[in-house]
Amino acid sequence: MIKQLAIVGGTHGNEFTGIYLLKKWQANPELIQRNSFVTETLFGNPQAHQENKRYVDNDLNRRFNRDELAQPGLTSVEEVRAKEINELLGPKGDARVDFIIDLHTTTSNMGPTLLLTAKGKFYSQLAAYVKMHMPQLVICCDEDHKTNDEHHFLSSIAPMSVMVEVGPVPQSVIRHDVFEQSERMTSLILDFIELDNTGRLPELPETVDAYRYLECIYLPLTESGERAGMIHRDIQDKDFAAIVPGQPIFVTFAGEEVCYQGEQTVYGSFINEAAYYDNNIAMSLLEKISLNCR
Amino acid sequence: MIKQLAIVGGTHGNEFTGIYLLKKWQANPELIQRNSFVTETLFGNPQAHQENKRYVDNDLNRRFNRDELAQPGLTSVEEVRAKEINELLGPKGDARVDFIIDLHTTTSNMGPTLLLTAKGKFYSQLAAYVKMHMPQLVICCDEDHKTNDEHHFLSSIAPMSVMVEVGPVPQSVIRHDVFEQSERMTSLILDFIELDNTGRLPELPETVDAYRYLECIYLPLTESGERAGMIHRDIQDKDFAAIVPGQPIFVTFAGEEVCYQGEQTVYGSFINEAAYYDNNIAMSLLEKISLNCR
Repeated sequence: MIKQLAIVGGTHGNEFTGIYLLKKWQANPELIQRNSFVTETLFGNPQAHQENKRYVDNDLNRRFNRDELAQPGLTSVEEVRAKEINELLGPKGDARVDFIIDLHTTTSNMGPTLLLTAKGKFYSQLAAYVKMHMPQLVICCDEDHKTNDEHHFLSSIAPMSVMVEVGPVPQSVIRHDVFEQSERMTSLILDFIELDNTGRLPELPETVDAYRYLECIYLPLTESGERAGMIHRDIQDKDFAAIVPGQPIFVTFAGEEVCYQGEQTVYGSFINEAAYYDNNIAMSLLEKISLNCR
Repeated sequence: MIKQLAIVGGTHGNEFTGIYLLKKWQANPELIQRNSFVTETLFGNPQAHQENKRYVDNDLNRRFNRDELAQPGLTSVEEVRAKEINELLGPKGDARVDFIIDLHTTTSNMGPTLLLTAKGKFYSQLAAYVKMHMPQLVICCDEDHKTNDEHHFLSSIAPMSVMVEVGPVPQSVIRHDVFEQSERMTSLILDFIELDNTGRLPELPETVDAYRYLECIYLPLTESGERAGMIHRDIQDKDFAAIVPGQPIFVTFAGEEVCYQGEQTVYGSFINEAAYYDNNIAMSLLEKISLNCR
């Protein structure tokens, strides 16, 4: 039973959509209230937003593994903020809030995507319910981790959580369509929890299609580590479409195509995401899976 | 006769396309050389690029009016850099370079756009020539200023100049299509100057369609000056399409439509450009004009 839920926006300071949704909900709290649980909101990284950056010192959404939270003497803006948020919503492992919805956007053409941080019937049913009301929804999950305890995401403070990830939208921009899709997804997640809490879930499909993270791949680099190329036009904006062995996925600035070297068909996400240039990550590769709702 | 030409990239530090085109041309200088003039390249704002921002203190591309260039005691990063660039390429009013091509990108869906900083037969013919080889080209000009001397843009250091403006691309991202369009436009501008210098211009149309800047309009704000709404989905991505009186152009976060109050049909550009959020500028409004090439 979920009793206390937090919606977090602005975990990344230049993802404006969540920040403005929080403002809307703070002015109209009835939009996110449901009868069987209490909803609160939290602005993740106001200082980064003030500076119109994803983060000031390092990525807040990678600061929540238990070892780091317990480590004394960390002083970066995000290390300090992570500990504050852990006190406000957590502490991780024995958290005050039961569920966190963390709002994100991407520059990639991912549409409305629900990122599940763990697996199990609850998550599968949640995903199936949201997709039932929002057919264009894409569901992604990460097989490597079994529980939030092993994650380093902000939302992993709570024992259960999801991330709402919608794109494409440039950093520091609000798009009407992305704003509405983020609002609608959040509202459907709240509706599902209300129905689940009160034993009134409608009939759901037996299974729901999803994607599972395999690995990330990197932009072509020169021997000295400089970027040597970019995402090929054939896969730009083609998140969740098949990438087959031998298909061009990059093109060097000189114009040479670089082909996918894998041995099986995969699917891309976060293709050409601006925030991943820091580490020269070009995209994530996924496989198709089916989640069991029964 | 144009003898000395400079191509500038990275005037805005998070517009990656021009910066990576410069790297390409520095490795392959023959791509931008022509017989009748000398081409050089300049990285406008490396410090802003290092910080992955448009600018460090203020917008470099507004720092080139003659009064400000002559003013002693200015110390912001961009004020200092403007004076350096004015020494390297200028000085404005008696510049070493005859022509500047300044490379920009936008988060708006403007496609490949040629921004003319002044009017006259040379510019009209240049625009007509580029459009002849790149039919999707859009041509924009600013009627208020007659000569570069009155502009505050970087490219106004030279007596003649254009800006290459291509979108949509998020800040801090390189897109294959935008990269190629920017490269192609630049190459065609160089070709035109070569043909004009050597008296070998082909036959050009009598006139070419263009847009002229009228005014910019602002996002809806609350009484305390906070953003209260966003670009309406009906005009998002619709740069250069008609906006008619009474048509919804904004929607408040609460969901109310805000309609265009003008009395004539206009055309939008820089619709929802990320960089203009600083000043809450929503878009530029334009009128259609025809440029005479004879």
